[in-house]
Amino acid sequence: MEDVAFLIDERGNIQERAVKGGALYAALSAREDVRRMPSDSLLIPGVTDLHIHAPQWPQAGMALDEPLERWLGVYTFPLESRYDDVFFAEEVYSDLVRTLLENGTTTALYFATIHEESSLALARICLEQGQRGFVGLVAMDNAALCPPTYRHANAQQALDATRRFIAAVRALPGNEGGLAQPVITPRFIPACSDALLEGLGELAAETGVRVQTHASESDWEHRHVLERTGKTDTEALDGFGLLRDATVLAHAGFLNATDRARVRARNAALAHCPISNAFFAGAALPVRTVLDEHTRCGLGTDISGGYSPSIFENARQAVVTSRLLESGVDPDRSPGERGRPDSRITFQEAFWLATRGGAEALGTSAGQLLPGQAFDALEIRNGRRGLRLSPTDDAERCVQKIVCHVTAENIVRVWVNGRMVVDKAYN
Amino acid sequence: MEDVAFLIDERGNIQERAVKGGALYAALSAREDVRRMPSDSLLIPGVTDLHIHAPQWPQAGMALDEPLERWLGVYTFPLESRYDDVFFAEEVYSDLVRTLLENGTTTALYFATIHEESSLALARICLEQGQRGFVGLVAMDNAALCPPTYRHANAQQALDATRRFIAAVRALPGNEGGLAQPVITPRFIPACSDALLEGLGELAAETGVRVQTHASESDWEHRHVLERTGKTDTEALDGFGLLRDATVLAHAGFLNATDRARVRARNAALAHCPISNAFFAGAALPVRTVLDEHTRCGLGTDISGGYSPSIFENARQAVVTSRLLESGVDPDRSPGERGRPDSRITFQEAFWLATRGGAEALGTSAGQLLPGQAFDALEIRNGRRGLRLSPTDDAERCVQKIVCHVTAENIVRVWVNGRMVVDKAYN
Ligand SMILES: [Zn+2]
Ligand SMILES: [Zn+2]
Repeated sequence: MEDVAFLIDERGNIQERAVKGGALYAALSAREDVRRMPSDSLLIPGVTDLHIHAPQWPQAGMALDEPLERWLGVYTFPLESRYDDVFFAEEVYSDLVRTLLENGTTTALYFATIHEESSLALARICLEQGQRGFVGLVAMDNAALCPPTYRHANAQQALDATRRFIAAVRALPGNEGGLAQPVITPRFIPACSDALLEGLGELAAETGVRVQTHASESDWEHRHVLERTGKTDTEALDGFGLLRDATVLAHAGFLNATDRARVRARNAALAHCPISNAFFAGAALPVRTVLDEHTRCGLGTDISGGYSPSIFENARQAVVTSRLLESGVDPDRSPGERGRPDSRITFQEAFWLATRGGAEALGTSAGQLLPGQAFDALEIRNGRRGLRLSPTDDAERCVQKIVCHVTAENIVRVWVNGRMVVDKAYN
Repeated sequence: MEDVAFLIDERGNIQERAVKGGALYAALSAREDVRRMPSDSLLIPGVTDLHIHAPQWPQAGMALDEPLERWLGVYTFPLESRYDDVFFAEEVYSDLVRTLLENGTTTALYFATIHEESSLALARICLEQGQRGFVGLVAMDNAALCPPTYRHANAQQALDATRRFIAAVRALPGNEGGLAQPVITPRFIPACSDALLEGLGELAAETGVRVQTHASESDWEHRHVLERTGKTDTEALDGFGLLRDATVLAHAGFLNATDRARVRARNAALAHCPISNAFFAGAALPVRTVLDEHTRCGLGTDISGGYSPSIFENARQAVVTSRLLESGVDPDRSPGERGRPDSRITFQEAFWLATRGGAEALGTSAGQLLPGQAFDALEIRNGRRGLRLSPTDDAERCVQKIVCHVTAENIVRVWVNGRMVVDKAYN
């Protein structure tokens, strides 16, 4: 709870960070263009949503009692196929991006759909609303697993579309600073032909564009890839040239130690989605191990496999799930047979995953309020609802209270890249 | 999502419930004193917090990384002992009751402390703010487990204090309708002598006052009671005359089928505290079984073993934990070895636990918006943050979305017993 002055440069980066008492703080405070925060506010880094399906926003909080096949076939694929209607897309995506910003999500890594025009609309809406948006046109061409009304006709069509999408996002007016970025997005190995996966790997190498996909997300998916390719997801993805710097693998609960070493070797990262995992993964990601190994990792909402648009609620669930993994859950087993010792993560670690972890995964200079990083920040109003920070609380305690209590209601202002994009301080 | 008119009688109960289209609806709508709700609002029953430690509110979201002994000895007991200062108590309790009401908690079953004056202040604050408050003066006299600065000197002292407290709550000005009720509250068997437990059982029989305590909450506590009494918690409590109509047992994860049959036979109930259990119980309560057996059960925040003052967030966690119990959590075990089949509960069942389940546990006529029940209700504003109810959503889907998305911010008005106690509709 320091009293700090920041100097933000014209590109939106933190140029100076000066603590009260020094000459620099005095000089910055005396500037005409200084902007002061109320004394009951504090500033924290913005959070990153490392895995979210934008088109599934209308069904957030729905159909979670369904098994995965029905969830995909009866709800999710039919919903996603509606995004050939760009007006529908614009309505949903505008609402979603605003909701995420209000929840403190300054950066999001999106799965869109296979539709180029509406996926481009998502990138444009991120730019307009000022969110750091990484947007993936979904590639999926496997007729055996994707419905006829919602898939690319073949690998070449998906590759051409992805290539066009990359160029279109880069050429968006107002995107000179690269706030919106295209992402190469094979849905997951089961939904893609080998030709498509291979082509996307080549496209990534050629363009330097980031990659995202799902990996080892459930028993079924994990086994399916093993049977089809004779390899684990990470090994197969690596073979296709898709396991690269800043590749983000969603869920990844069934990676083994060799898989995770491969992820580290490529500077790829995991998107941990603890709420979603409770419904569709069938197990918990052992985050303690992931952190101890220094495998890159951040948090994802996985809308709508998870119901909550809040990374803070997911951070709480990450802690809770890690505790349940450590203690075990079934009271009819003996304590020794029940849990997995030393699996817990702390609230401070969950905060790190939400902020710097997510930014590091994407290879962006953000997630901490330090010189050289982008000014992606949240103004948190103290004293609202559960949040009661006291002047005697040390940093560790403040962080724990913040993770436990922050909802959209505590977040009164949001900045991305130095631009104020939410201001409800006086509501 | 029906259009309904309620007629509330002078005691705050629902006298009539009329659906649009009928003559009664027309008659009620034509009354001069009719109060209309905006079309983007809907009304749901208020929720019950069936287990909360009011004095621990200042440490909600703190110290959850500590083991139970340190949590009790270093944080909790020293904090609770500060409530000999009634001014401190009034400040904390006013803030807590207001926060709970804003989160939709129309009824709360409180553990206070051993201090009579400040515990009575909690009951008075419930009356002032209009919350249905069940307040327990904590009884604890076991020198082996309670610190010298925070326990009753002996059983007789604790019994005398409890008897005085019951009379004082009943005699509070403005409590003629019994909105605030005293509760007989042995902390848990380990903290109490046999003489105290026996005396409290006699007092319950004599006065008809409800009982609350912790039962079979962790491996340690469960074993401790077995070793001391040769009985399980429920058997021991029953022997002391403490397992009675509307007795609420907090946590209760380690009850066996015989224990739960005993609970049912006495019309007692369980307070399920899913967030707290992740930190201190060491296992999950098998709620599916509890529901199937028709054992009475509601939800508790267990502030500050749990961090959240929201019963809705606990309802979400109840679903999530039940899914993790069903699937298991450790990815290194095979699916068959990992989980406990058929353990899930639905969002609709979690909503029932939060509303009618909690009210039924306490034996109060509330928790559903039906004639004869108290008008304890929440006005939910649709369209805020994640909550997007559509006119085409059926009741089942509405309830799932409500459980997934409601925070204090969606709750714009709250009524208890017909009195409006929160009104932030136009903030
Ligand atoms: Zn996903
Ligand atoms: Zn408790």
